[in-house]
Parts: sequence; structure tokens; C-alpha cells
Amino acid sequence: MYRIGVDLGGTNIAVGLVDESYTLVEKYSVLTLATRSANEVILDICKAIDTLLEHAGVPRRKCLSIGIGAPGSCDSEKGIVFCSYSLTWRNVPLAEQLQEYFKLPVHVDNDANCAALAEVRAGAARDCQNAVLITLGTGIGTGIILDGKIYSGHLGSGTEMGHMSINMNGELCFCGRRGCWDAYASATALIVQAKRAGFCRPESALNRLEDFTAKAIFDLAEAGDIAANAVIEQYCEYLAVGAANVANVFGPEIILFGGGISKQGERILDPVRQYLMKHCFDTRPEVIPRLAIASMGNTAGIVGAAAL
Amino acid sequence: MYRIGVDLGGTNIAVGLVDESYTLVEKYSVLTLATRSANEVILDICKAIDTLLEHAGVPRRKCLSIGIGAPGSCDSEKGIVFCSYSLTWRNVPLAEQLQEYFKLPVHVDNDANCAALAEVRAGAARDCQNAVLITLGTGIGTGIILDGKIYSGHLGSGTEMGHMSINMNGELCFCGRRGCWDAYASATALIVQAKRAGFCRPESALNRLEDFTAKAIFDLAEAGDIAANAVIEQYCEYLAVGAANVANVFGPEIILFGGGISKQGERILDPVRQYLMKHCFDTRPEVIPRLAIASMGNTAGIVGAAAL
Repeated sequence: MYRIGVDLGGTNIAVGLVDESYTLVEKYSVLTLATRSANEVILDICKAIDTLLEHAGVPRRKCLSIGIGAPGSCDSEKGIVFCSYSLTWRNVPLAEQLQEYFKLPVHVDNDANCAALAEVRAGAARDCQNAVLITLGTGIGTGIILDGKIYSGHLGSGTEMGHMSINMNGELCFCGRRGCWDAYASATALIVQAKRAGFCRPESALNRLEDFTAKAIFDLAEAGDIAANAVIEQYCEYLAVGAANVANVFGPEIILFGGGISKQGERILDPVRQYLMKHCFDTRPEVIPRLAIASMGNTAGIVGAAAL
Repeated sequence: MYRIGVDLGGTNIAVGLVDESYTLVEKYSVLTLATRSANEVILDICKAIDTLLEHAGVPRRKCLSIGIGAPGSCDSEKGIVFCSYSLTWRNVPLAEQLQEYFKLPVHVDNDANCAALAEVRAGAARDCQNAVLITLGTGIGTGIILDGKIYSGHLGSGTEMGHMSINMNGELCFCGRRGCWDAYASATALIVQAKRAGFCRPESALNRLEDFTAKAIFDLAEAGDIAANAVIEQYCEYLAVGAANVANVFGPEIILFGGGISKQGERILDPVRQYLMKHCFDTRPEVIPRLAIASMGNTAGIVGAAAL
């Protein structure tokens, strides 16, 4: 038997078919064209799933369920998307409409939560009961698995760990607070930090970067640029302060990092690990969370949705 | 039928009998004398329970279970106290020994978790699924109820929210980190803040306090002392910064405050509420956590333990 996963993004609708061991056996995607009405987008999700099944040569009756990861806050019990900025949706009864069309159980949850679930079921946190996934991208996204299940707080509001202040009088965050972890440890924040450092160090190659990306900053540091190295060292400390908060607050077995910056691997894991060993409140070595890089990559959204 | 609750503290062993509606019907306590061996203390717990049942005129066979709240990290599945500083215990198989003596199911969990459970079952958070209890005492204690159950992290390590840094380059905390919420919003921290303020403001009555307690500082503020008022205003902001982190990270239905400072009621709740309305990431009014003062007082430990 198979399960269908839908990674509903602001840009693409990616649908996939997974088998019982959560291996992705077929994938298909279409543009979301999110400025359209919710009904038009949902109709396209249905069509994309039909195409997927056709391509895979799998009939509907061989599918157990459909799961959808949506970019926003969701009521997973009722299958409603409460609020999605990237889709400009409010209170869309997503599950209901797909259920009618496919006559299959349909589950809906936040996309970052789905990614975390995928890591626990089939990725770097396999078999962990308590895991936190921190996605370091334009912002910081977080997904939490507690006791083997997605935790999403009251009315799907929870787990915005990027908006935990680690510096109450510090950087102004786009959300309006000061000192949010997001304003220190997202890729966007790293780029701001590197631009500032370049301004203060005219000799640094940071000032001659054509494509100012997080990766370019790490590459310059690797090549020996002093200012870039100082920026990365400080960035890893910001990352570590938030990770230590996560460790003290949740006591997870494992903290995973995903997103573009996570490709740096041990370059970020090692300093964060050193910091946790020094700063976790519970100093028992077996309690300090393991750190790892998320392994499901771009398929996490689909596989996690299918696992809902 | 009844349940037995044990609030095992560094100073007292308080035992109580609760009925099916979690009403405390009998209570008894003895000194812990924590410098003794664990076996001696456990023997006294057994004797205290025997005395309790005798006083209540309730036979053992009318009791369903025994629950124990212990001051430290616990393995609630195995009924072991991993580590308790105030008892100087490490890996004590507490449940096993009581089970043998009473032939009843015995449950063990951290005392702050028990207090939170009591509030959810019979107190100010009754019928809430997701609740966080913040106890403002010498330190900040935290208990978390998620999906109706105690959440205590991997190997009972979790939920040390007092040791979430809200100011990464700020006050040095006793735990070794900088900027812990505990170092800003515990009663101890408030007293430090008031002493500093008094030093800078020689005219303030803060300098003439004989009994330098959190309550005395609130009383001076109430009486119009300018420095004391500034201290309290700043203190409430520290409290609010951490509470907003709790809201963003857990998305609970309700945040309860307990401990000595919570007796100030709306004096602390109102500024924290204002701050949350401004600073929660999810701005839907129905998602911003309700705030309330814990209502179970000194019986929370016993009632929560009985409810394990």
C-alpha cells in the first residue's frame, strides 16, 4: 500500500507517492500560482495527485491516505489552514475538499512540522521520540516532534522558536520583537552580519563578493579571510545560544539543522556541540542532545506529509 | 476510591490523600532530614503514608495509586530519581521500594511537573490541554502539560525554561550561562535589582528595608517609592520577555504563574498581558495565551503527585 504526500508551497505544489517504508517512489509538481483563489489551487492539487497516480500506475484503492503540508498555521484535527501568508489563505477547509474528491482520509499540518516528522520516520532522527528540526533559511523554521508526534501548540500556534528572544535589547526582528533568534541565526541575519563586518574591514574580500549568499561567506572564511572567519565564529555562537535554549526548554534527544546553511555540516555542528556541552543546564552527557544535519532534503515535505 | 500524593521536598515530606475529584481530604507531614541515606528517607515516606491512612481511617485497599513528586530529574517510566541536588540523590529507584511495601502502582515525576498537573486537573488551568506553569521563587521553576500530559523531555531533562537565555551577553546565571530568565525574573533576581536601584537612589526607602523580600519591594512600589516602582516596572518587562518566548515556543492555551511573587496578581499579569498582545508572533487574539495565577498553592505538589 502507498500514501500520498503533498508539499504545498507558495511557489510549487509538489506531490509524491511513498511506500510503506517511506521511500518516495514517484514525484510530480506543478506551479501553485498562489494569487488565484484557494478553490483553484485545491483543484490543481487534486489534478496533480491524479497525474501522479497515473504516472506511477497506482490506482487510488492502493492508497491509504493523503497528507498535506501547508505553509502556515493549521488545525490538524479539522484539516483547516487557519492562516497562510504565502498563499494568502484564511480558514480554508483543505482536508474536506480533498476528502470529497478522493474518498480517502486527508491530514493537514504545517510544512515545517511535516519536515520534522519525515526526519523522525525516515531521516536523520529515525526512531527518536523527541526531536527538534531547525531550518536555517531566509528565516528560522522549526518543527517539533514530542513523544513521536508533531507538537503544534494550541490552535496550531506553537513552535515559532525563531521568535524566541535571545537578546532582549538587541536586533529588531521583522516580527516587531527585539533579539529574536531569527534576527541572529537565519541566513538573512548572517548576510547582514557579513555586510557590516565588510564595511568595518575594507581589506576583506567580503567587500568584493558579487553574489552575497551565506555559502559565499562560509567559502571566504574557509579560504582564510579574517573578517569572514570572525563573522562565522560569531554566527555559530548565535546559533549555539538558541540551540542551548532549545535544549534547556525541550530536552530533546536530537536537534537537527536543515536549510541551506546546514550544508556546512560539522563547520556549524562542532561549535554548537562545544557550546551545549558547556551550557546545557542538565550536564549529564547522555542528556545533552545529539546534533545532526537533516537528511531528507527537498523530499522532507512530501514524505512528512505522507506520514501524517 | 482515593489516591495518595507525596510532595517530597528537601525540607519536608508532605503526604496527602485525595478523592476522585482531586480534593485533598487528609494531609500529614514529617521532616525530610535530607542528609540521611535515601533508604532512611524512603522508609519515612512509607511510615508517613501509613500514618496518613490511619488518621484518615482509610484502608490501603481503598487506594488506587501512590504518586511522588521529587525535587530533581526523574525517569517517570521506571520510577527512578536520576538526580536531585536538594536530596543529594543519584539514580534512586524510588517507585520500586514503595511498590514492594504498599503493593500499589507507584508513579514518580518531578515536583514542578506535578504542580502543573495539579493546576490542569483541579486548579486554574482546569480542562486545558496545553499549559505552562512558571513558579517565581528563589529560582524559576517550570512545569509543562502538553496534550493533557506532563512533558519532561528526554530522560526527564526538559523544561528548564528558567535557563533559557533572554540576554545572551547579560547577567551571569548560577548555571554558568549568561542572561538566563532565572537571572532576571526570579525573586532572587528582583531583590538584586532592587538593591542596585537603592544604591543609585539614596533617597529611596529601598535603602531602609529591614526585610529585603520581593513582597517588601512590591509594597514600597505600591506606597509610591519612585525607585521601587521603576524596579517593578522593569522586572515585569523581564517576566514578559520570557513569557513571550514561552508563548512563541510552546503556543500554550494558558500560562500560569505560581510562587511567592504570583501573590501580586494583576500587578504582574497586566503588564505581561500587554506585552504578549504586542509581541506574540501569532497575533490571532484567540491564540495569545491566557494568563492566570496558579490556584492550588501549597497543595499543588501533593494533588499533582496523586494525579500522576
